[in-house]
Amino acid sequence: MMTTREPVALWPQEDDLGLMTDLYQLTMMVGYFRSGMAGRRAEFELFVRRLPHGRAYMVLAGLEQALAGVLAMRMSADRIAWLRGLDAFKHLDSSLLDALADVRFEGDVWAIPEGTVVFPGETLLRVSAPLPQAQWVETYLLAALGYPTLVASKAARMTTAAKGRPLYEFGARRGHGPQAGLLAARSAYLAGFAGTSLVEAGRRLEIPVVGTMGHSWIQAFDREEQAFAAYAQIYPGSATLLVDTYDVLEGVRKAAAIEPAIAAVRIDSGELDSLARAARAILDEHGRAGVKILCSGDLDETKIARLVAAGAPIDGFGIGVELVTSRDAPALSMVYKLVELEGQGKYKLSPGKRTYPMAKQVYRRRDPAGRFAGDLVARADEPAAGEPLLERVVQGGRLVHEPPSLIRVRERCRDQLAALPDHLLALDAACDYPVVYSDQLEADARRLMGG
Amino acid sequence: MMTTREPVALWPQEDDLGLMTDLYQLTMMVGYFRSGMAGRRAEFELFVRRLPHGRAYMVLAGLEQALAGVLAMRMSADRIAWLRGLDAFKHLDSSLLDALADVRFEGDVWAIPEGTVVFPGETLLRVSAPLPQAQWVETYLLAALGYPTLVASKAARMTTAAKGRPLYEFGARRGHGPQAGLLAARSAYLAGFAGTSLVEAGRRLEIPVVGTMGHSWIQAFDREEQAFAAYAQIYPGSATLLVDTYDVLEGVRKAAAIEPAIAAVRIDSGELDSLARAARAILDEHGRAGVKILCSGDLDETKIARLVAAGAPIDGFGIGVELVTSRDAPALSMVYKLVELEGQGKYKLSPGKRTYPMAKQVYRRRDPAGRFAGDLVARADEPAAGEPLLERVVQGGRLVHEPPSLIRVRERCRDQLAALPDHLLALDAACDYPVVYSDQLEADARRLMGG
Repeated sequence: MMTTREPVALWPQEDDLGLMTDLYQLTMMVGYFRSGMAGRRAEFELFVRRLPHGRAYMVLAGLEQALAGVLAMRMSADRIAWLRGLDAFKHLDSSLLDALADVRFEGDVWAIPEGTVVFPGETLLRVSAPLPQAQWVETYLLAALGYPTLVASKAARMTTAAKGRPLYEFGARRGHGPQAGLLAARSAYLAGFAGTSLVEAGRRLEIPVVGTMGHSWIQAFDREEQAFAAYAQIYPGSATLLVDTYDVLEGVRKAAAIEPAIAAVRIDSGELDSLARAARAILDEHGRAGVKILCSGDLDETKIARLVAAGAPIDGFGIGVELVTSRDAPALSMVYKLVELEGQGKYKLSPGKRTYPMAKQVYRRRDPAGRFAGDLVARADEPAAGEPLLERVVQGGRLVHEPPSLIRVRERCRDQLAALPDHLLALDAACDYPVVYSDQLEADARRLMGG
Repeated sequence: MMTTREPVALWPQEDDLGLMTDLYQLTMMVGYFRSGMAGRRAEFELFVRRLPHGRAYMVLAGLEQALAGVLAMRMSADRIAWLRGLDAFKHLDSSLLDALADVRFEGDVWAIPEGTVVFPGETLLRVSAPLPQAQWVETYLLAALGYPTLVASKAARMTTAAKGRPLYEFGARRGHGPQAGLLAARSAYLAGFAGTSLVEAGRRLEIPVVGTMGHSWIQAFDREEQAFAAYAQIYPGSATLLVDTYDVLEGVRKAAAIEPAIAAVRIDSGELDSLARAARAILDEHGRAGVKILCSGDLDETKIARLVAAGAPIDGFGIGVELVTSRDAPALSMVYKLVELEGQGKYKLSPGKRTYPMAKQVYRRRDPAGRFAGDLVARADEPAAGEPLLERVVQGGRLVHEPPSLIRVRERCRDQLAALPDHLLALDAACDYPVVYSDQLEADARRLMGG
């Protein structure tokens, strides 16, 4: 039987980016044109309101992907034609929707570099553009920055917990759709992971690609030892054998006897601490002191820290679902708010969702030992002490800053984590890093809000 | 300043799908070729081990996207060349990697239709193919089915809780990357939502596109009433005004006075029950009984149910982060396991992760009133009573089943939910729907496992 309708994969193409936005962005854009406000210069700022419970800092990630998307956003004629048919627009003069046809992002973007440790309440990115353009890019910016930042922040906690033992990202199958796997692999490597199992992430991003074997390899052979021997012969010296298909320690005994010697065994279920100790003893007895032990199976930073603290003889960890879904905290309260229009401060007072007016810069102070001592959020035009974190990356709709290589971002993240005060690296740290607003900003806010 | 490196958006293209897999799938595939096992017919089954706490059923979704991906998977010559350089493959005879160059999916796929209510332990999809091909597609199948099923299942709970009030999906900005927004919009609509704010989802999938306004529209004007009036004039009769930028009830008073009359007000923060009642009273006093009240702001099924039970005068709900991240349960334990090879049953015994051997079919019985009474998981070649749920959708690598339109899938989901026993629709239901394995399967398992 032939089919008449092809299945749809739902991978957006570059032409689709112009509509990867919420409808209200488009109705507001049309409204700005209609109200003669389309030329007004707006400053929008992106920040995180508060951190999920138990998190004390974030690692900013996803900027390269966010900028690539925003700079590629267009509205083709066929998209405009399609929009005309929507209930929201049907009644409008056609000239109003024509205004959208010429829209592309021609503004400036200031951003904190990827790999930087950041905190709630700080401006992470600022868009300075004509009002409709700045409105249009909101949805994509938030979707492109939120998840990578969430995963990089989670990965940094795991990296800290592992105290130097390598972590491998194995989570593509558990990501929220196929693209999430790519984004998660990038964020994990950025925040200190040693590699990923997702081959395409390795190819696109030059991340080391790693792998072991699946249970199906073992099951495909009549006997476990046959499966082990065949793999060890095909991948001499590099094979990692999965030992928990039937009986873990029996599996380790068989793995220890394999020639040529294997690289590692992987334990994917059960009580990892005691199994790893027993496995280590078996391997050592068989003269396999060089064979490593890799563990996986729903591991998070707390479990990693516990295994490391207990001294379990585990040489590396495979991490999946807990990282790629950020299971304990799968969302950030990242928002994008109008703070200035034609030089005039803008704010909102919604319960629990106040914002500060005026374009801002974030300044970071260090103590004499080079550790982060506190951040000041000030007006962008206000002189202040400390290192300014936001830099201009896009000017007039053109990139003016070459995106750093992923390996450079990874080095920055490592250096940033090393400069964090020790107590903030604890897995149960309170989010108490000092972030203060300048007197000038507080005064602006009071004046505008009539306080 | 010009830049030399372009930023990368991380949208995979069709050519990339062959490597959207874990490295171990490729090392195992090469191993099957090397071991002379590449021609063996394998049956792999995809199922969910157990449900997250508080969930009693799932709504299967994502099949169309999963099949589109699997049928498009290829290995181009340049991908093979890139693979040769990986540490894992460097030492191999080049002929072994050449074997991958010809691989495409040429097997059969049996699947339960999208929109069906399903339960843990049931075979949701079965792949019957030469061993390397069946191995290769695992990662993509899981990534493409898991998240849509998670969101459709969550959306069904919200639909049930809303008792007929319309729900709108507003979550694109909170998805785990931009693609997740598209997938979430599809799953939400499939499971009873009335529309989405994500314009591209509307265009691609013919989902009604809906929108209100953002706080920035209000802030862009000097006075709230100016912002309201301008919007109502541009979108006469259809405008939904956001009333919580400064003071909610003050905003409602201004909205009630606007000419021409608006369609609705939206409250996005604060105590929604009491605010909605106060807003309703104000609107009615102003002769605006026809103006609806829409609420949003971190709403989940429990909050929706509470507002509905309290009789809050809310006409519709905007839903974002709780749906698109499935925040209370952001992952499913969905797995894909070898169950049969060349007619021989395969299983594993890993602690907590046992599987049943042999290719299976799922049969559903109904009670005289047409409600689901219990499911039987049986061998695929075993006669059994009830409606068989798995149907063949791909044969010999070709689609043999036209993907149903999204609106048909939505109707199926509605009918399926209506046929669920009432107690399973409760938000705190135990997962106690009867799913049993046939005597034949139990006997096969005992025999193979030597029990």
